[in-house]
Amino acid sequence: MEIVFLGTAGSLPTEKRGLPAIFLDYMGEYTLFDCGEGTQRQMRIAGINFMRINNVFITHLHADHFMGLPGLMQSMDFLERKKPLEIYGPPGLEDTLDHILSLGTFKPDALEIQAHEIDEGTVIKGERYTITATRVSHTKNSLGYCFQEDAKRTFLKQKALALGIPEGNLFSKLQRGETIEHKGKTFHPDQVLGEPVTGRKIVYTGDTRACDAVAELAEGADILIHDGTYSQEDIEKVEDREHSTAAQAAHTAKKADVKKLYLTHISQRYPDPKPLEEEARAIFPESYVAEDFLKIKVPRHK
Amino acid sequence: MEIVFLGTAGSLPTEKRGLPAIFLDYMGEYTLFDCGEGTQRQMRIAGINFMRINNVFITHLHADHFMGLPGLMQSMDFLERKKPLEIYGPPGLEDTLDHILSLGTFKPDALEIQAHEIDEGTVIKGERYTITATRVSHTKNSLGYCFQEDAKRTFLKQKALALGIPEGNLFSKLQRGETIEHKGKTFHPDQVLGEPVTGRKIVYTGDTRACDAVAELAEGADILIHDGTYSQEDIEKVEDREHSTAAQAAHTAKKADVKKLYLTHISQRYPDPKPLEEEARAIFPESYVAEDFLKIKVPRHK
Repeated sequence: MEIVFLGTAGSLPTEKRGLPAIFLDYMGEYTLFDCGEGTQRQMRIAGINFMRINNVFITHLHADHFMGLPGLMQSMDFLERKKPLEIYGPPGLEDTLDHILSLGTFKPDALEIQAHEIDEGTVIKGERYTITATRVSHTKNSLGYCFQEDAKRTFLKQKALALGIPEGNLFSKLQRGETIEHKGKTFHPDQVLGEPVTGRKIVYTGDTRACDAVAELAEGADILIHDGTYSQEDIEKVEDREHSTAAQAAHTAKKADVKKLYLTHISQRYPDPKPLEEEARAIFPESYVAEDFLKIKVPRHK
Repeated sequence: MEIVFLGTAGSLPTEKRGLPAIFLDYMGEYTLFDCGEGTQRQMRIAGINFMRINNVFITHLHADHFMGLPGLMQSMDFLERKKPLEIYGPPGLEDTLDHILSLGTFKPDALEIQAHEIDEGTVIKGERYTITATRVSHTKNSLGYCFQEDAKRTFLKQKALALGIPEGNLFSKLQRGETIEHKGKTFHPDQVLGEPVTGRKIVYTGDTRACDAVAELAEGADILIHDGTYSQEDIEKVEDREHSTAAQAAHTAKKADVKKLYLTHISQRYPDPKPLEEEARAIFPESYVAEDFLKIKVPRHK
């Protein structure tokens, strides 16, 4: 499981920071959170094959968070992508995509877009993970997302062998939670599965003020990626802009007892982001300012 | 007079090449030709203050040539630009800009957009230069642009003094082409102005097959910036794509007797563009493949 920060700028891109986009590779399944202008190129630079992206989750419909979609869609179409592209986002998404498809002479020949306007709650219940959304405190209809890997139980192979169950198909059934019969005996999964181990959890706030909704969503997360637009010294501006300071994000990280906090959506006011990092670390030591192309590996829980 | 290549990629951006955009600084007056996705950031990287751009000329409404407009407009608005932004392009431009202004929650507070749908002929007659457009051979409604600096006549100061005309206001009038009277005598500008020296000429084709229209537009240009998407070896693909090969562009440059040819809109097939440059130089020695952030100074004619 790997996260790649593709764009860590605030509303304006800078020399070093592209507009918001976060890539998640979960066991070869590619997901994108936000898609600011330039994201397709950032993926090329990062060596990510954007044709393999399944789902895109847009936090809100401010231009800096979705204006990379038209170009990405165009390139996918140009390269004759067959699989539909699933795009999730708050109300207004469908209308926006309609307008995108009316821009210039762009009309996809091959690419099919599936738009999903969502509200808070479960967005996707996959086979191995769940994605949920919660309303955050920014513009109307702003969402934060949580990627929650399913809990797993280790298969206790030695125990199964000791019980006289032969390796093979019966092992698989037990691993999947099915009860089996063998030589007239019944075996339950609980007999050969360890205690459940919680799955990994990643939370991305999009743009937001510090708020309880995020703290709840992020409870115990491995990685909290939080709006950290400003320093506390510039808090007056934060109030205007509906964003968080590094310190506010750190307080939320502490409250939610996450493992690591990554600040993103960094204002152009901070060409050197060290002060933001220090401000956050004074409150929550495991704080980092994300940089473009930063990769984080999230180890499996044991 | 300086040209900065901000994006030299073909339809797909690459690690090294952004989507099409060419910047022209004419004596402090900023003009942009095409505005592919990512252009605002390329300008930041190049150290160009995009707030100073007066006019944007879009060659055609394929997404890779204009999808940087929404983000640029948004940033100009965010930074509270007061001056209207003038955008010129082929029919369909106004409709496209309307759709851009309906994307997401983007609605400019401060920024005024002046859209100008144009056809071939004179687009702008400025005080010091003229911009003309011609239809090129690509998609329907594709334009190439010519920036033509006005011809200038040198003021022959010694000659004026010898005629007894005093320095000052009368000099200025003669320079502007006015006839003056001094001490009962009449003086005509021709008496004190040298032979006209032609102005500098820059031509940008946008996407196009090699065609006579471009050769005519580019006649005697200082700089011809030409579609050079493919090598001659890949000509089959060029016919599909309505683009030029390096060799075809070079033939046009030779025919038009330009000073220098710059190839742009380079396909991702050529991570090393040397073969394109060599292919062009075999026909027209003053050929170059443009790179992102390449700057060309165009010296004043004497």
